[in-house]
Amino acid sequence: MPHIALPNGVPGIRGPMMFRPETARPMNELVDVLLRGPHTLSPGERELIGAYVSARNDCVYCHTIHGAVAAHHLGGNEDLVLSVKRDFEHAGISEKLKSLLAIAGKVQQSGREVTPEDVERARQQGATDLEIHDTVLIAAVFCMCNRYVDGLATWAPEDPDFYRQRAARLAAEGYTAITFSTSASTM
Amino acid sequence: MPHIALPNGVPGIRGPMMFRPETARPMNELVDVLLRGPHTLSPGERELIGAYVSARNDCVYCHTIHGAVAAHHLGGNEDLVLSVKRDFEHAGISEKLKSLLAIAGKVQQSGREVTPEDVERARQQGATDLEIHDTVLIAAVFCMCNRYVDGLATWAPEDPDFYRQRAARLAAEGYTAITFSTSASTM
Repeated sequence: MPHIALPNGVPGIRGPMMFRPETARPMNELVDVLLRGPHTLSPGERELIGAYVSARNDCVYCHTIHGAVAAHHLGGNEDLVLSVKRDFEHAGISEKLKSLLAIAGKVQQSGREVTPEDVERARQQGATDLEIHDTVLIAAVFCMCNRYVDGLATWAPEDPDFYRQRAARLAAEGYTAITFSTSASTM
Repeated sequence: MPHIALPNGVPGIRGPMMFRPETARPMNELVDVLLRGPHTLSPGERELIGAYVSARNDCVYCHTIHGAVAAHHLGGNEDLVLSVKRDFEHAGISEKLKSLLAIAGKVQQSGREVTPEDVERARQQGATDLEIHDTVLIAAVFCMCNRYVDGLATWAPEDPDFYRQRAARLAAEGYTAITFSTSASTM
């Protein structure tokens, strides 16, 4: 049961976002720019970073929904997403993305954990300043969202199909659309 | 030295915010709503929550600047801010604020650490759902900002007067003003 009175039957971050639309609007705008804005990293790669950080924070709602959005962008490859969450260094992804996930994993612990060597590894794989910046900020944003979702003890559905269907809608409509949804529908 | 090429001589979060104004804008809007919007918790109390979480994350820039903003709002009482960072349970603040800081400290570790007992303690001190929600989100937002500032190895000035002067300006103008500042001045 959530720690505060949230709309009934609304899963994950959407409950507190309906409770407090004034903060939901800039949060969703930030996520939209980072995960869906024009970029040299694909939406699937950026969603993988978010799903990985959320898995490390053990935030079931966030790592499942963003894992599902990543899989949606990656041609439905759910196995790839699972392998990234479990052991990205041996997953079937680019060396550049591995080096960025290593930075994201450090940020998940503390920003102070990121070393010049971590950044140098990413540069050697061709990562740009913007890609390094956005990796750090995506990881930091998910550390926020994971704490928001779990700190209020929100509800995470168990049915994997819920996440698959919701992911398809998020991939099509984006995150800012959440802010303006006035429906308490679970989709 | 910062991990990426940031504007010279721009301290703390302002460097990466100048580097990436597209993400700075919603971040500052979120912080402005949470720390400066109309509220039953005073701006000084909300800044104390942010400064406390930042101190727990060992983010020097954030805990010093938000400690200075808190002190500014609290009649210049820097000793009170220090006592909150060090041991809030014995600081000269309300029992309600102590109960909210206890929740914020749990969120700093993980959202999953917050217990029904933590929330019940806050309710018994008169905390509302909105105050509990915003405490969780303020703590989560600072976990993001701390990681952003330290994950890019930004510069934190050592002179306490820098923070006092900057705090007075932030208290007067707010956080969204940062986004629109095109000057690379350190103030």
